Order: sequence, then C-alpha cells, then structure tokens
Amino acid sequence: MEPNSRYDIAVIGSGPGGLEAAITAKVRNKNVILFGEPDLSRKLSGAHRIDNYLGFPQVPGEVLAENFQKHLSQMGLSVTQERITAIYSMGDYFALQGKNGNYEASAVILATGVVMEKPFPGENENLGRGVSYCATCDAALYRGKTAIVLGYSAKEEEEAAFLAEIADHVTYLPMYEAGEGFGELESNPKITVRTGVKPLSMEKADALMRLRTDSGEDFDANGIFVLREAIAPSQLVPGLQTEGNAVVCDRQMKTNIAGLFVCGDIAGAPYQYIKAAGEGNVAALSAVSYLSALARK
Amino acid sequence: MEPNSRYDIAVIGSGPGGLEAAITAKVRNKNVILFGEPDLSRKLSGAHRIDNYLGFPQVPGEVLAENFQKHLSQMGLSVTQERITAIYSMGDYFALQGKNGNYEASAVILATGVVMEKPFPGENENLGRGVSYCATCDAALYRGKTAIVLGYSAKEEEEAAFLAEIADHVTYLPMYEAGEGFGELESNPKITVRTGVKPLSMEKADALMRLRTDSGEDFDANGIFVLREAIAPSQLVPGLQTEGNAVVCDRQMKTNIAGLFVCGDIAGAPYQYIKAAGEGNVAALSAVSYLSALARK
Repeated sequence: MEPNSRYDIAVIGSGPGGLEAAITAKVRNKNVILFGEPDLSRKLSGAHRIDNYLGFPQVPGEVLAENFQKHLSQMGLSVTQERITAIYSMGDYFALQGKNGNYEASAVILATGVVMEKPFPGENENLGRGVSYCATCDAALYRGKTAIVLGYSAKEEEEAAFLAEIADHVTYLPMYEAGEGFGELESNPKITVRTGVKPLSMEKADALMRLRTDSGEDFDANGIFVLREAIAPSQLVPGLQTEGNAVVCDRQMKTNIAGLFVCGDIAGAPYQYIKAAGEGNVAALSAVSYLSALARK
Repeated sequence: MEPNSRYDIAVIGSGPGGLEAAITAKVRNKNVILFGEPDLSRKLSGAHRIDNYLGFPQVPGEVLAENFQKHLSQMGLSVTQERITAIYSMGDYFALQGKNGNYEASAVILATGVVMEKPFPGENENLGRGVSYCATCDAALYRGKTAIVLGYSAKEEEEAAFLAEIADHVTYLPMYEAGEGFGELESNPKITVRTGVKPLSMEKADALMRLRTDSGEDFDANGIFVLREAIAPSQLVPGLQTEGNAVVCDRQMKTNIAGLFVCGDIAGAPYQYIKAAGEGNVAALSAVSYLSALARK
C-alpha cells in the first residue's frame, strides 16, 4: 500500500512485541503496516540462547527469529523498512513522519524497545530548534549551512554523507567503535570525522548550536543531528506520558493518548521476549476495540 | 520433594501462564512446585488451531501442548497432580491445602484460569459452614450425616463414592452430560443420583443446608459439596481482591496479598495463550524479587 493511504493500525518496531501485535491485528482482519528492520531484531537474532520462551526449549536467538519470520510470512505480513521519526495525534487518526514518506493510521502500537541513553542536557529543549533526529527529513534546511552528526551506528555514516551533499560542512562524531574505519566519509572534503569525542551537552550559542565535549573542545554548527538507534518515546510522540525509560500504560497497554498503545521493552521491565509478545497480543486487541468504538462514533 | 517441606515458589495451574512462570522461576534457580493436570491444559490441547502464538504459525493446540511439555521436561520440571483447595497467607509463607496433602511455599503464583460460573446465592456466605469444595478434605466431618454433591465433571463421581464411604447418605447431582451413565454410583445403596436438576440457591434451614432447584423440589442435607473444575480465586485465597471474574493485579502481576502473584486468564481478559505466557514470565520475576526482599529482612 502507498504512503498516505490510511491504515487501521501502524505497528512500529519488529521485535517480539511488534510482531505479535501485527499478527494478532491481522488475525482480526485489520489493515496493518509493520515498520521495522529486515532482520526483525538484532538484539534477538544476536542472543546466544533463550531458555524461557515457552514452547522453544534452549533456543538460539537466531532460530527463534527464523520462526518469527516464518509466522509473519504465513500471515501474509512483511516488514516495511522505514524509520518513523515523529508521530502526531490528529484526533481520529495519527500522522506518522518517516524518513521515506508520511503515513496515516487510525491506531498506533509502539514497540520500539527501550532507549537506554539519556538525552544530553539541552537536547530536548532544542529539539526542532537546532537539534534534529532525522538527516533525511531535515537536510533541506541545511543548504549552505553546517552540521554536527552524532552517529550511534555505522549505518548513520550514509546519513552523514547525504547531509554533506546539501550542507556546506558536516562534522561526524561516531558514538561506536568502527572496525573498518570511515574511509568513504574521510575522503569526502565536506566531512570531518572526529573519533573518541564524548559529547556532554548542547546549547544555543548566538545563531549556532554549541556541542560541549569531555575533551574541553567545543563544536559549533547551525545544527546538531543525534542519530540514535531508537528515539525516546516522548520525543517520538509529543505529549506521551513516560516514567524513566518507560511509557506509562495500563494492563490493557493503553497510554495517555487515545488510540496509542505500547508493548515490549518500551512498556517497562522485565525486558523479556515472551513478556513482549504477550503484551503485543494485548495491545493489538485493545487497538481493535478502540477501532470498533471509533467506527461507532 | 515431600509435602511439608517449604518451596520457594508454588505455581498453581498448568496452562501457558503457569508453565511459563515455573520455567522462568527454574531459570532463576528457584525451588519450584508446579500443581496441575498431567495433560497440562485440556482447553489448550483441545484447541483446533491457534494462529497467534508468536513462533508457531497455524499450530494445533495439541502440538503446542507437546512443545510445552518438551520445554517443561528439558527444564527438569514436572507437574504435581494435585488439586489445591485453599491457600492461606501466614506472613512470610503460604500454607497450601491440597486434596492429597499440605504444602508450604514462600511465594505463590496463581494461574488457575478463569471461573465462568458465578457462585450460587448463599454459596459464599455458607462456605465452611455447610458448603464445602473438597470431599477428600472434609469427608471426616460427615460421619453419620448426609450430603449433597454438585459434580461438575465425571471425575467427581469418585469423590461422591468416597464421601458415601463415610457419610450416611449422598445425593449426587451431576452438572454435566454423562454419556456412560452413573452405573457405579447408582448401584451404591448409600447414593441417590438425580439428573436434570438445576440448583438455584443454597441456604441454612435449621441445622441443615437446603438446596433450592428450578424444579421447585428442595434438597436438605447436613452439607453441600460444590465440586467445580476451578474454584473462584477469592474462595481459594481468603482476602484476595477480585473484580468480576478476575483477580485485581498491577503490571507486575502483584495482587493485594504480599507474595501472591497471578498470571493468565485469572488476571483478566483477553483470554489468549501468548498473553498468559507473557504474564507468567512477569509473575515469576516479580516472585523472585519478592523472595530477595524477604531474604534481606
């Protein structure tokens, strides 16, 4: 289905919570879009052995992931590879902003996992005013300007390169160990790569953003891109009530935003596969009830 | 392990919630006893096909149950076939009354499913004062007396026969269709079998209990035994807070009684296998935390 048609339910995240939510929604004949990674969950497929996913004794994460993939295919579901960067409640539907397009859904199930990193001091305050989470979305605003990119995984190198096509200059700070170096970025005259730098805070400095670091060296640019694996839920969905790392929800996986449900690690500890899957089931059935109530309005 | 030794965790119920709870508790090196049925869950193994237990596409209930059984065996767990009829919180441990013996556990996880039948008017009020749920436990009190038995499945016939060994007379009212008749009971001069009788209420009538029925005929006896598949949770555990059919619990599966946790259908809708398993995981980890806190006291 094309972007801009309205789905019944958008599921964001392809770990066990998101997968179970999508499957249960499909069983209930809902028009579902499932956003995630082609390999479903790197955390899962990398798990050496899982002992307590009922029905799979001593199963390697990879084997469990294969079974999940089979289940998904058998249900006629597939993963849409897209990073959702913002979700807005529009009353009776949600507008989802992705890197590759915009989407609409009547209900949303968030299953994006837990964000362990805390935001930097000054990050939340300057979000949308000099701090951005999506190079693809906001690059156009940086024509003739400068940017700093904090990349949390190697796949963000591509983002930095794309940004440099438009911006005048990009400073790339990798927040990970790069086994293979940064060849392509380092040969780009518009990009400076600086390794081993630990950011401390970000703040406005006249018309620029200033990134303070542990080395005492500051970096100034028109904007700072923070490209993490996952975005903190309250930043992804404006107005969403959180407590620590978790979204506040009830036993039916309802959040404080009508039509928005959560499951899995984002809903709080314990961080366990079968718990996430169980919650995905409940979130989907709650979303189905919500859609029925919406249709009766 | 023998009755009367103290277990870390007693899990009551062998559906997906109870099994996952027992497995997770075992993974965490707890000394677990799992009470249930040898065939785990008749509801599960009788299910034609389950579409949304993540990892098992279009699986017959019987196959899923086989996989659960394998998982249990691989963890070195087995089901103790015992019906628990009462659970008492003794402060830092629980006393469990079973048909075959008494047990002690520091924490309890209830996974007994949902009881759909409502108690009869007068049933709760007279429990322990003329109404009983366990013939094996209370038969001794009926020497030289009379009893009425409401049997909800064929296996209660054995209970009625045992009661008749001690009591003067037993009136057996089957609450099920008996394909094969009641041969053994009907040939017993101390037992009267009455089919097609629908009980309406139970009340004190002088020193006796009176069972009122839809036929207008009343039955009087010293006591009434109500032998259901499952016992309502508030009757199983005195003081347990319930709402409708469900035990009130939080997202960590804690009930109002310290050290007592729930999972699966008894914790409320939706009644789904994967939801039950997910909750079993959470209940077990909450019980583990509770035990740690108990040990620190």
